[in-house]
Amino acid sequence: MNTHEYIENNKQKFLDELLDLLRIPSVSADSKFKGDVRKTAEFVKNSLEKAGVDKAEICETAGHPIVYGEKIVDKDLPTVLVYGHYDVQPADPYELWDSPPFEPVIKNEKIYARGACDDKGQMYMHVKAFETMMATGSLTCNVKFMIEGEEEVGSDNLGIFVKENRQKLAADIILISDTSMIANDTPSLTVGLRGLSYLQVEVTGPNRDLHSGVYGGAVANPINVLCEMITSLKDENDHITIPGFYDKVAELSAEERKALNDAPFDLDGYKRDLDINDIKGEKGYTTIERTGIRPTLDVNGIWGGYIGEGAKTVLPSKAYAKISMRLVPDQSSKEITELFSKHFSAIAPKSVKVKVTPHHGGEPAVTPTDSPAYAAASAAFEEAFGKTPIPTRDGGSIPIVSLFKKELGLDTVLMGFGLDSDAIHSPNEHYGLFNYFKGIETITLFYKHFAKAK
Amino acid sequence: MNTHEYIENNKQKFLDELLDLLRIPSVSADSKFKGDVRKTAEFVKNSLEKAGVDKAEICETAGHPIVYGEKIVDKDLPTVLVYGHYDVQPADPYELWDSPPFEPVIKNEKIYARGACDDKGQMYMHVKAFETMMATGSLTCNVKFMIEGEEEVGSDNLGIFVKENRQKLAADIILISDTSMIANDTPSLTVGLRGLSYLQVEVTGPNRDLHSGVYGGAVANPINVLCEMITSLKDENDHITIPGFYDKVAELSAEERKALNDAPFDLDGYKRDLDINDIKGEKGYTTIERTGIRPTLDVNGIWGGYIGEGAKTVLPSKAYAKISMRLVPDQSSKEITELFSKHFSAIAPKSVKVKVTPHHGGEPAVTPTDSPAYAAASAAFEEAFGKTPIPTRDGGSIPIVSLFKKELGLDTVLMGFGLDSDAIHSPNEHYGLFNYFKGIETITLFYKHFAKAK
Repeated sequence: MNTHEYIENNKQKFLDELLDLLRIPSVSADSKFKGDVRKTAEFVKNSLEKAGVDKAEICETAGHPIVYGEKIVDKDLPTVLVYGHYDVQPADPYELWDSPPFEPVIKNEKIYARGACDDKGQMYMHVKAFETMMATGSLTCNVKFMIEGEEEVGSDNLGIFVKENRQKLAADIILISDTSMIANDTPSLTVGLRGLSYLQVEVTGPNRDLHSGVYGGAVANPINVLCEMITSLKDENDHITIPGFYDKVAELSAEERKALNDAPFDLDGYKRDLDINDIKGEKGYTTIERTGIRPTLDVNGIWGGYIGEGAKTVLPSKAYAKISMRLVPDQSSKEITELFSKHFSAIAPKSVKVKVTPHHGGEPAVTPTDSPAYAAASAAFEEAFGKTPIPTRDGGSIPIVSLFKKELGLDTVLMGFGLDSDAIHSPNEHYGLFNYFKGIETITLFYKHFAKAK
Repeated sequence: MNTHEYIENNKQKFLDELLDLLRIPSVSADSKFKGDVRKTAEFVKNSLEKAGVDKAEICETAGHPIVYGEKIVDKDLPTVLVYGHYDVQPADPYELWDSPPFEPVIKNEKIYARGACDDKGQMYMHVKAFETMMATGSLTCNVKFMIEGEEEVGSDNLGIFVKENRQKLAADIILISDTSMIANDTPSLTVGLRGLSYLQVEVTGPNRDLHSGVYGGAVANPINVLCEMITSLKDENDHITIPGFYDKVAELSAEERKALNDAPFDLDGYKRDLDINDIKGEKGYTTIERTGIRPTLDVNGIWGGYIGEGAKTVLPSKAYAKISMRLVPDQSSKEITELFSKHFSAIAPKSVKVKVTPHHGGEPAVTPTDSPAYAAASAAFEEAFGKTPIPTRDGGSIPIVSLFKKELGLDTVLMGFGLDSDAIHSPNEHYGLFNYFKGIETITLFYKHFAKAK
């Protein structure tokens, strides 16, 4: 039985296993899910063992554990290090989900659940592809799995784990499925990722909540001040005003920008899908460029004062915001975090006190398109989809990619099978059955071509 | 026994009764306290009956009930209509209270509880003053009590009640204790109150929460946009930019402004009490003017995106804010609410949708200082405190005052015994025992002088 037949014969089993995985609420950001995160790690470990690794282990960290497993076929064969994450984003606001986020359902050929695509679904494709190759005796490379539980909160402990296990993690290439492609009939390979700086800010006015009638107009309102400070971070062209912010941004050549903009993009469809009358972004750049090659600043959350039912005429003591910046080559997350902190404190009026707390960050990355690994990935997509994949710049961040390069000297191939419309990080996240099964097949083809290419 | 002796002999009883009243969480803004609000109304009704009114009743409204009671001594005597409210502001944030808001405690001669001052404590003084005059046979006026349960949410139903009961409420003067004085050794009488327009705004960007990496930089973030819109509502001089906003603001003469600023004010003590390094307000006006005679705009609450533990890289679909404006003569709450709604929708960029929902409002008011009632109040303070009270403009709003003038043709005397430092609307609200007992005595003296003056 060949790999294609094995996948066809095991579709229901592959699906049922993923649904079980999706039922465990492994929200890494919220400590109340700590036990579920560990359950998920054990689930992944058991899956790797059943699939046929020589050994699988749960590696403790200062935070959530990392699952490691390997199958060494022959020391002389090329080795693929598969990275993925089993943790998921928080599911709230729960009320906006059509079905409970941790009770997966299949609707119009899609799996609906938190983590269906990001990254349980895409990560699990690699486990099933490995099982397929083992079961059909077609595994042509050594394989190492490193599946972490802290990607959605900054992967801090994975960085330490990598530094401490260089030998164990030795490989020829990193393989990751945690990105998206343009469309099911337009395969693409992500060759660039944005970095991230994520901070929380706290603005304190008076030492207690005040009556807005007695003090309003005479005492600085921390919410108004926070709004003014956030507003001042961009100019009228949506250009970020933090001094030095753009100093290290790598400008692309006219040719590179043209190639980037040659990728199919339907602006009307884009607006229709989001139900917006207009897009908004940095002047002088296209939507593809704004999300691909330009840095951004977004408020991810804001709160302060009375947010309950009805009205309260309060002049609050404090206001808060979570602010993140997406970074591009050659910006440094650490440097931008420092620039932001320095600037945000500097622009605070004397009437308030400001506290800035860095949350986490990650470096931007660009992966080479002239490597044997990229060639193998491209060939795999071509064989599976009948089309050469288009190289794209992805707006998201997988901080670990630049860390792998730095610590292990390894390049990464980003074979993503999601779609931007999968609503990852949003209510009603979903993943297409087509993408799940096609992904498993494409991954097996990557191993075939990569073994040849080396 | 004279009134002074009666009050002295009943201090403990007067205090214990108030503590019982403070134990009932009558938060009118939050429907989950509906039952407690009614319990409080019944408590007030029973207190009036025990104090000796001819009849007391609970008057149903579309919202929380109104308690009415009256004692007609002689049709030819002047009639005082006492207004107060038994509802209180929400107590959150609960974690900032040193003791539970609805478990009153006495510390350094002060009663700590939500509503201790605003307005249960100040309202109950009138019930006890009435009891004192009844018990000592010194009641020289007819008295009518109208105690409502919706002052903190806009008094909408009281307005209807007043319109429908003009006959029943016929009186010579309205007497209210729901304001503050300058200091315990510097009595003052409030002669001006600000009005209020309170609205909630909702800004919608994309139709769902988005991944800030995939869409960030290309799609309008409703939080950033809301911050920009709020910021644009004031210029660099903290002057409000809503077209027409200041058109009806009554400018005071140089003399009036001087008289106002002659009231004692300790800026250093003010800043120390609030732990702020600087005050902030409209350019060209003093703190007393900013809170007394100038309109303001404050964000009372803001929320949007992810506000939970940790980090979530989301570009949210919606952002919200509760915004209120304090108004001065001769601004109209209805008109300002319309100007705000029109302007806020007009400044929204095409990339978002905006919804503005008026919450409630109230008209500003100025009370005459040349009336027999004002003279009686002034004489009462002088007799009780040994000092002539200073007329002041108060920053807060008691919308009902202008409604009384309009519907009943009655002026109001604002005999407030609170202090700005009582932290009303804030955690650890408190009310001085001195103020509570001195207030009861001063009120009995008002009746004495008012009967003479008429």
